[in-house]
Amino acid sequence: MKHVAVRHIDRADGAAIDILRTAGTATVHEAMGKTGLLRPYMRPIYTGAEAAGSAVTVLAQPGDNWMLHVAMELCQPGDLLVVALAAPNTDGLFGELLATSLRARGVVGLVIDAGCRDIKALREMSFPVWSKAISAKGSVKATLGAVNVPVVCAGALVHPGDVVIADDDGVVVVPRSDAAAIARAAQQRLVKEEVNRARLATGELGLDIYNMRPALAAAGLRYVDHD
Amino acid sequence: MKHVAVRHIDRADGAAIDILRTAGTATVHEAMGKTGLLRPYMRPIYTGAEAAGSAVTVLAQPGDNWMLHVAMELCQPGDLLVVALAAPNTDGLFGELLATSLRARGVVGLVIDAGCRDIKALREMSFPVWSKAISAKGSVKATLGAVNVPVVCAGALVHPGDVVIADDDGVVVVPRSDAAAIARAAQQRLVKEEVNRARLATGELGLDIYNMRPALAAAGLRYVDHD
Amino acid sequence: MKHVAVRHIDRADGAAIDILRTAGTATVHEAMGKTGLLRPYMRPIYTGAEAAGSAVTVLAQPGDNWMLHVAMELCQPGDLLVVALAAPNTDGLFGELLATSLRARGVVGLVIDAGCRDIKALREMSFPVWSKAISAKGSVKATLGAVNVPVVCAGALVHPGDVVIADDDGVVVVPRSDAAAIARAAQQRLVKEEVNRARLATGELGLDIYNMRPALAAAGLRYVDHD
Amino acid sequence: MKHVAVRHIDRADGAAIDILRTAGTATVHEAMGKTGLLRPYMRPIYTGAEAAGSAVTVLAQPGDNWMLHVAMELCQPGDLLVVALAAPNTDGLFGELLATSLRARGVVGLVIDAGCRDIKALREMSFPVWSKAISAKGSVKATLGAVNVPVVCAGALVHPGDVVIADDDGVVVVPRSDAAAIARAAQQRLVKEEVNRARLATGELGLDIYNMRPALAAAGLRYVDHD
Amino acid sequence: MKHVAVRHIDRADGAAIDILRTAGTATVHEAMGKTGLLRPYMRPIYTGAEAAGSAVTVLAQPGDNWMLHVAMELCQPGDLLVVALAAPNTDGLFGELLATSLRARGVVGLVIDAGCRDIKALREMSFPVWSKAISAKGSVKATLGAVNVPVVCAGALVHPGDVVIADDDGVVVVPRSDAAAIARAAQQRLVKEEVNRARLATGELGLDIYNMRPALAAAGLRYVDHD
Amino acid sequence: MKHVAVRHIDRADGAAIDILRTAGTATVHEAMGKTGLLRPYMRPIYTGAEAAGSAVTVLAQPGDNWMLHVAMELCQPGDLLVVALAAPNTDGLFGELLATSLRARGVVGLVIDAGCRDIKALREMSFPVWSKAISAKGSVKATLGAVNVPVVCAGALVHPGDVVIADDDGVVVVPRSDAAAIARAAQQRLVKEEVNRARLATGELGLDIYNMRPALAAAGLRYVDHD
Repeated sequence: MKHVAVRHIDRADGAAIDILRTAGTATVHEAMGKTGLLRPYMRPIYTGAEAAGSAVTVLAQPGDNWMLHVAMELCQPGDLLVVALAAPNTDGLFGELLATSLRARGVVGLVIDAGCRDIKALREMSFPVWSKAISAKGSVKATLGAVNVPVVCAGALVHPGDVVIADDDGVVVVPRSDAAAIARAAQQRLVKEEVNRARLATGELGLDIYNMRPALAAAGLRYVDHD
Repeated sequence: MKHVAVRHIDRADGAAIDILRTAGTATVHEAMGKTGLLRPYMRPIYTGAEAAGSAVTVLAQPGDNWMLHVAMELCQPGDLLVVALAAPNTDGLFGELLATSLRARGVVGLVIDAGCRDIKALREMSFPVWSKAISAKGSVKATLGAVNVPVVCAGALVHPGDVVIADDDGVVVVPRSDAAAIARAAQQRLVKEEVNRARLATGELGLDIYNMRPALAAAGLRYVDHD
Repeated sequence: MKHVAVRHIDRADGAAIDILRTAGTATVHEAMGKTGLLRPYMRPIYTGAEAAGSAVTVLAQPGDNWMLHVAMELCQPGDLLVVALAAPNTDGLFGELLATSLRARGVVGLVIDAGCRDIKALREMSFPVWSKAISAKGSVKATLGAVNVPVVCAGALVHPGDVVIADDDGVVVVPRSDAAAIARAAQQRLVKEEVNRARLATGELGLDIYNMRPALAAAGLRYVDHD
Repeated sequence: MKHVAVRHIDRADGAAIDILRTAGTATVHEAMGKTGLLRPYMRPIYTGAEAAGSAVTVLAQPGDNWMLHVAMELCQPGDLLVVALAAPNTDGLFGELLATSLRARGVVGLVIDAGCRDIKALREMSFPVWSKAISAKGSVKATLGAVNVPVVCAGALVHPGDVVIADDDGVVVVPRSDAAAIARAAQQRLVKEEVNRARLATGELGLDIYNMRPALAAAGLRYVDHD
Repeated sequence: MKHVAVRHIDRADGAAIDILRTAGTATVHEAMGKTGLLRPYMRPIYTGAEAAGSAVTVLAQPGDNWMLHVAMELCQPGDLLVVALAAPNTDGLFGELLATSLRARGVVGLVIDAGCRDIKALREMSFPVWSKAISAKGSVKATLGAVNVPVVCAGALVHPGDVVIADDDGVVVVPRSDAAAIARAAQQRLVKEEVNRARLATGELGLDIYNMRPALAAAGLRYVDHD
Repeated sequence: MKHVAVRHIDRADGAAIDILRTAGTATVHEAMGKTGLLRPYMRPIYTGAEAAGSAVTVLAQPGDNWMLHVAMELCQPGDLLVVALAAPNTDGLFGELLATSLRARGVVGLVIDAGCRDIKALREMSFPVWSKAISAKGSVKATLGAVNVPVVCAGALVHPGDVVIADDDGVVVVPRSDAAAIARAAQQRLVKEEVNRARLATGELGLDIYNMRPALAAAGLRYVDHD
């Protein structure tokens, strides 16, 4: 591992981030062709948490949050901190003090493939975190990692400056260069879903709206009256 | 696997379903002789979710929700959709659009041995779901399964028309033919528990209420004053 | 296993317990030199649960809650019941009736390395429980364990009379003889954290407050302008 | 749960069992339309274990192997004992003594959704077991279950008398009434696989043997020379 | 955590260790009243591994094997090293070099609640290890733990000098002061098991040998001829 | 997801691959600065499996092995197939027929973040596979993925043409452009380890060889004679 901290990164376009946040992870994931999703063990620490921002990335060692302090200085308003781990770990590498610091710098949230603590305080200050675990286990500051290098977080590749969208359904990462195009695709999906939702609400069937019956028959589905 | 969709099934008696819903999963599970419980990894997507209904069953392929659309047409008011998977899967096979459709048809809830998405929207529309995971991962419509055949869902056998009861404690299935008898047994337990709760609340001990001391002594329990 | 129930145990000092409760698990865990934490799979059954008390310990058999009834008689106001299991188990060994009984005796909460049920009722009566699972599966009363012996619960050693602190971040155990010293250390940490929080809130960096830059440089961290 | 032991069950045809054993789990699973597979956490206790037989079924309580003794008396030569659990459990409910007894009765193997022990002795006596865990943890004989009732074992429904096939790849159950037909289908698959194996061994591609190119193109696969 | 290394510990009696090794974990676990078992995720790195010795204990930090070097100096011939972790960890904290060193000092094996690496070399030198994981991930030497203090390893309490027995079935710890008594009890069990094995091998039933029929009937077991 | 198959990739240097294979995963992982390791749940299907080669990468859908057939045509002698999954999956996507085909094309092994089947046949033909699970569950050919694109496999980023080394300790990926340098660094480590092994084998302590005593004292380690 190269122990570097990269000072300057290209960030995603704010307008695209806004659209992607509004669309939400499920729609964005579809708009990307079903890619970019972090493993579903990543869960928000409180119900209704939502955030989207430009990724500042951290590669941390198990039980060690030293690199989060290094990353802090390199964060800008609108950033979202993404912490990957060099090995599986559930320790509470992040808590209220670091959240206070992130908020002071305008960072909008945290995604960490390890544990989080001070859940009550974070909930009360409405600082959104998505983590693999909740754990009161604190951390040491003893071993280097890296900041603003490409990382694999919860099974997904994240480059610095990628857009990260997170909500009740999980966390999705959109490559920076695709953000505008995916935002447009997501908006189109939302329009289409709105139309379908209205039709489904009246009792119309997806079988008919999506014209599934011929394909089902061709695949060999057989209707029987009784078992 | 036979790729069939069974149109007509016998449903459970509404009065029994009402009683079982009120009794709740823990009491019903006891009334059944401690059977019928789905594995405890099945959790409600929001606190306080409750539902009970006649099972319409689906056997789906991993990552594929095609069969849910087929099942939709065969649902009636009061039904509860039970989705088993042909192999372990955590993808979000169910979300807001399908919930809109289920609600339009009077379906009271969903139990799925896979993932669920659109959690915020489902919570806002109070559509109760019990799932193995929460995941923004969407699904394809490519491979057939079956509808209204016996399935094993989260370790429990469910026949079409069985009563499924679900709440904060998990999910229990009652064979359709036993529903009335189990409902009666559950009511009797509720009465007995009410009496015991009142006695326990006064500080009386279970040791005495249930007369456990002789059996404990016979089994060899030894009281000592100090370690 | 010796099948004993120990009647008299030394309990922790009430004043120390109060301080430790206020400090919370994350601060207490740090004050202890990062020891005493139960595995992070132990989660509160409702958001915001908090409790601290003197441990009454139970060693129970899988699927069997007989020993909880034995322990009940030996509990005093201010106690917190800690249930360890002789083998991994997720059954719902604890529910509303036992909680009613514990409350009647002044017990402040429960920590159980197995399952819990009657979640809704426990939430409504605000009886805090930390468990490994939620499960409607009921229990038998067939096999002996022990009460008020040292137990290993969720990976941590708990002696009767130790202080157990539990909140949204997990569960920590403090040896009875260390309770007063740890309480003092925790208070000192709270003061220090308050100062640091105020500085961090203004945008000052942990890098500077904790003087990390020299150590980072010495360890070999290299800043680069671009990747 | 009804605490019954059913004395007489219909067993599967020996010739069909022989064919299914030879075909192996992977081929049989395909021949059944990809059904009947127990969850993949069921693993043989030694490399190269193989068995097939008529299922005698047991529903046991966690940590309790009383019902295995009841089942023993009802076993016949050629049977394979299938043990399902009323709740998740990893205790070593089966070991050398029970294996000695099963062998004396001509039973060909054991499938258990819990733990197994005495691994070395079982390996030396070549008694094949598929289990969820290996654990030295012994069991009690305190709570009733049932014998020769339908059970859900590791996610699969098993009726008494069904054919169970187990090898290095896992465990598959074939409904008794389908055994002859599935055996024929498995034999046909073996023949077809033999032909395909020979062609593939010469370097011919599955793309051509199975004529996949048109379907891949229709689905939208695009070949590019370089990334 | 107190960062101490305790130089002198009382060791278990060699004759008792020999008997316990021969008896094996399953028998010893029974002889102890079903206590002392480490969680069943602890597995030998090769088939047929067997070891028993006096415990030298280590409390290590995740990803850090510094304390193993400290412990090395304090080991004597016949010792068995037991490594507990301050937080869940799967890194390969132990490998061939440390095994070479342990062997040079006469240590008979290793039990580690983390990962192990260099599996091939360890197998070739027949150095037995029981671990939670196998992982090529190496470790740092940055943070202190402790040596020869009581530890909780894989859910079991181990004091320095306790007897640790490990084989294909898992790992069991016997308190030093109980070692002689447990060794005697284990020998008695072996004799009894030998007798029962001989009777079972002739086809005699456990139902009769252990006289289970009256208790089964009393508990309510009902035999039926057909389902 | 872009559904592409990339025909031409740059491959790693054969000499570097040979050195890395000989060094093994643990040494290579160290030589890379403790990076490049796939999650430790990736295990060889038989003891002693070893392989190293240039990665041909596949991104597959859960339960679907269509893309493996596409990849087959693009493989060359010395390649090693790496299969990542679009969502968690344990199905047996790979077995004897595909192995026969891979061998015919000179492919040296397979790494798959899903299940494998036909274990016995693969063992008999000595075709090495590292997988997340073993499962007889077969696959469909219904949904596109991609071939020779960067993938995240078991938590590690793999580019086409990277060197993949796999043995009993797990799987490590070395970026193609670093392969020669890492090979040199690995060789140097091997030499150094050989020297240390010889010294350790004589009973010399790592404490002294690595001069750890001053740092331990500085960190605060305290030796005590007795507890």
